[in-house]
Amino acid sequence: MTRAEFSYDFPHRRLISIADLNPLDVDILFDRAEHWLEVCRTPAKKADALRGLTQINLFFEPSTRTQASFEIAGKRLGADVVNFSAASSSTSKGETLLDTVKTLAAMNPDLLVVRHKACGAAAFVSDATGIAVVNAGDGMNEHPTQALLDAFTLTQRLGPLGGRRVLIVGDVLHSRVARSGVQLLNLLGAEVRLCAPPTLLPLDADRWGAEVFHDLDDALDGCDAVMALRLQQERMMAGYIPSLREYFHFYGLTARRLEAASPGALVLHPGPMNRGVEIDGALADDEERSLVLDQVEAGVAMRMAVLEAIGTLARKNEERRQ
Amino acid sequence: MTRAEFSYDFPHRRLISIADLNPLDVDILFDRAEHWLEVCRTPAKKADALRGLTQINLFFEPSTRTQASFEIAGKRLGADVVNFSAASSSTSKGETLLDTVKTLAAMNPDLLVVRHKACGAAAFVSDATGIAVVNAGDGMNEHPTQALLDAFTLTQRLGPLGGRRVLIVGDVLHSRVARSGVQLLNLLGAEVRLCAPPTLLPLDADRWGAEVFHDLDDALDGCDAVMALRLQQERMMAGYIPSLREYFHFYGLTARRLEAASPGALVLHPGPMNRGVEIDGALADDEERSLVLDQVEAGVAMRMAVLEAIGTLARKNEERRQ
Amino acid sequence: MTRAEFSYDFPHRRLISIADLNPLDVDILFDRAEHWLEVCRTPAKKADALRGLTQINLFFEPSTRTQASFEIAGKRLGADVVNFSAASSSTSKGETLLDTVKTLAAMNPDLLVVRHKACGAAAFVSDATGIAVVNAGDGMNEHPTQALLDAFTLTQRLGPLGGRRVLIVGDVLHSRVARSGVQLLNLLGAEVRLCAPPTLLPLDADRWGAEVFHDLDDALDGCDAVMALRLQQERMMAGYIPSLREYFHFYGLTARRLEAASPGALVLHPGPMNRGVEIDGALADDEERSLVLDQVEAGVAMRMAVLEAIGTLARKNEERRQ
Repeated sequence: MTRAEFSYDFPHRRLISIADLNPLDVDILFDRAEHWLEVCRTPAKKADALRGLTQINLFFEPSTRTQASFEIAGKRLGADVVNFSAASSSTSKGETLLDTVKTLAAMNPDLLVVRHKACGAAAFVSDATGIAVVNAGDGMNEHPTQALLDAFTLTQRLGPLGGRRVLIVGDVLHSRVARSGVQLLNLLGAEVRLCAPPTLLPLDADRWGAEVFHDLDDALDGCDAVMALRLQQERMMAGYIPSLREYFHFYGLTARRLEAASPGALVLHPGPMNRGVEIDGALADDEERSLVLDQVEAGVAMRMAVLEAIGTLARKNEERRQ
Repeated sequence: MTRAEFSYDFPHRRLISIADLNPLDVDILFDRAEHWLEVCRTPAKKADALRGLTQINLFFEPSTRTQASFEIAGKRLGADVVNFSAASSSTSKGETLLDTVKTLAAMNPDLLVVRHKACGAAAFVSDATGIAVVNAGDGMNEHPTQALLDAFTLTQRLGPLGGRRVLIVGDVLHSRVARSGVQLLNLLGAEVRLCAPPTLLPLDADRWGAEVFHDLDDALDGCDAVMALRLQQERMMAGYIPSLREYFHFYGLTARRLEAASPGALVLHPGPMNRGVEIDGALADDEERSLVLDQVEAGVAMRMAVLEAIGTLARKNEERRQ
Repeated sequence: MTRAEFSYDFPHRRLISIADLNPLDVDILFDRAEHWLEVCRTPAKKADALRGLTQINLFFEPSTRTQASFEIAGKRLGADVVNFSAASSSTSKGETLLDTVKTLAAMNPDLLVVRHKACGAAAFVSDATGIAVVNAGDGMNEHPTQALLDAFTLTQRLGPLGGRRVLIVGDVLHSRVARSGVQLLNLLGAEVRLCAPPTLLPLDADRWGAEVFHDLDDALDGCDAVMALRLQQERMMAGYIPSLREYFHFYGLTARRLEAASPGALVLHPGPMNRGVEIDGALADDEERSLVLDQVEAGVAMRMAVLEAIGTLARKNEERRQ
């Protein structure tokens, strides 16, 4: 069931971490994302939900695809969207992060979408400014909209995730996608597994609420879905893995490999993919099993849902203050 | 005669090559470009033709002026326009062109404006995604909106081009503007000539449907208009021409040189101009003869016409699919 | 008193220099800036004043924060805003500044916001194109919207500036902010002082209409407000000052230093700040005295006022020409 108007009072003035959400919040976001997914497939994609509001995409790390996803989401909701490429900004003229952020906040944006290489940056920006912040990735910490869109994409195909077994495989150590993903999948009642070479697992992985594996075949047993994480190739130089080829041999997803999983097990990847490293090209292109492009499409819809929820509350709070 | 509403069913879901167009298509585009040209000269430039649609400018080669022209055209038609600078995108993280393009397509844009250094890239993007593509230049192959705006600009001054003699002079070898231009001028019944040093002519130039010259004075004889092509100065290093000075001596356009052409012959240049190389500065600034700025103005109007035609069909096709 | 509609016929078709303005113009701009300041604090920030108009931000020098301020201002007024980063544009392909500017003008923008490193660039662009230009900084010459927002910010706290004593301290030599600021503060009847080391004062500073000091304590005597200018650190290498540390010792603003000024004297800085160089961090963060963030907020409001005034006249002029 899809609602035409957004009526539930979303209680969160920002989205920093999956830990902030309860199952009802997620349910509402999924419901709205489903609505926006349908809208985005029509030629009348433009809504008025955020009309009059200003959204600043504040990207200290470049990420053209994530920024485009948030930009499209904001514009389709009617917001004025401004991209602020902080890489080329005043921080390079000796300004502190806090001053840069407070300066932007003084321009009265209603929504800030923040990407930064440091853990905790999004919370820091939100605390420092009091403005509604959506965390678009803070270092190795969290990337909550990615976790939401991943789980939403799975739900669209599998129905409720309670009792489903989901494996996350690859560079868990450096992955904010994994950190947010495990939390959300647990919240939704899925059984989560992690698989990685020991060098790419954080020391505390066994306390994340997921069973940890080093052997991919063991890990795949009975899985309904597998999410491959991106391997940042420059990391190989740092000695985490012997070679890309060996990595693919032990941890790359292929159709044959997936035979160890449940029949029809689904495959996700947050992109951009290294074909032949994390995932075999033929599997990535298998429309039955690969949800890679569904994730991208769901990404815009989920970001619309999040921006709408956060923005609607921001508007109410601002009106109350008047 | 200018129509206020766009009613003719433009039959092309994309614009890759001039070869796709028939004379009626061109007539309609000219008609609409004339309408938009008038609108752009008023202070109420904003229309609703593409409201609700998302246009992504996907430039793998940077071109600030062409991108600005398409961006302004799309925004004046009410589209949400997103610039995706592919140069700094995931392709640099090891992603394939096809994956980058499919990722953007999954965000449900209605229109993609594509510039790429490889011949055939725009058609490739369109085939791979099924999305309405406007080719904004693919390698040395085609640049159809440039040809349309050039011919439109000439028509505004000369009336129908049937029987008119038009010369294209300069680096024909590397020029997508020439390839698209010759086709369109032929379609419109003009007599087309090409003039270049032998090193800057493709081997098959005599089969393009244009008479080929090496001597500029001979080539100019009886011409109603001359279009100078841009000389990429970095090419000189590759040994195509002895020096910029010698190039200007033999192939540069000057008022004196133009005496060999018809009285009042007009001059075009796609820009950016190298004054003193392809064209004498005084001639470029001669408002009677030089159409250089008229071309830029017509560029926005023609791109509005093309985006409107393609976008209107895209909208209809999407509605039909609902 | 704030007016809901803009009715006064602002008589200037461009804003190049503070010298163009008379006290009534400034009064009107302050009045409108106050209106927009209130609007920007509400969640319904979007107006229609510039709907249908195209604003191009033509930045030959990068300045992400000033560009963001103008972009937000234009969008909140309903204009179509296009950022044209001239640094990466055709000028690098051998095109002259004049050709770049005429090319953009041919796209029929209604408003050009121009930043360039050369003195006189904004006037040059305006003269060459006939288009309404707002000078966003031309070399060491002027930065009129900065002066307006500074004076407006002070007026919001102090009331009319007539008879108030205001000090500008720092790198006066290279500062367009100082050049515009002194003129405007004089126009408003304030008593203006300049303080800098002799190496950072222009030779003609004594003819600017401000008393010149080299000793900060002397200069601060009886001041109601002090504006610190940004020190471009790369300049230190050029030998203007012995060291940043010595500069701070003699010219840096601190709470203790300010005891020489009037009780409760206010502090301004155009940003981005070098904490510990031009201003002590604790003073910059003192919400009672530091107006740094108020300036940023007022910046958007003042730019809305200027764009509205100039844009409204541009629209009328264009309609008259029809």
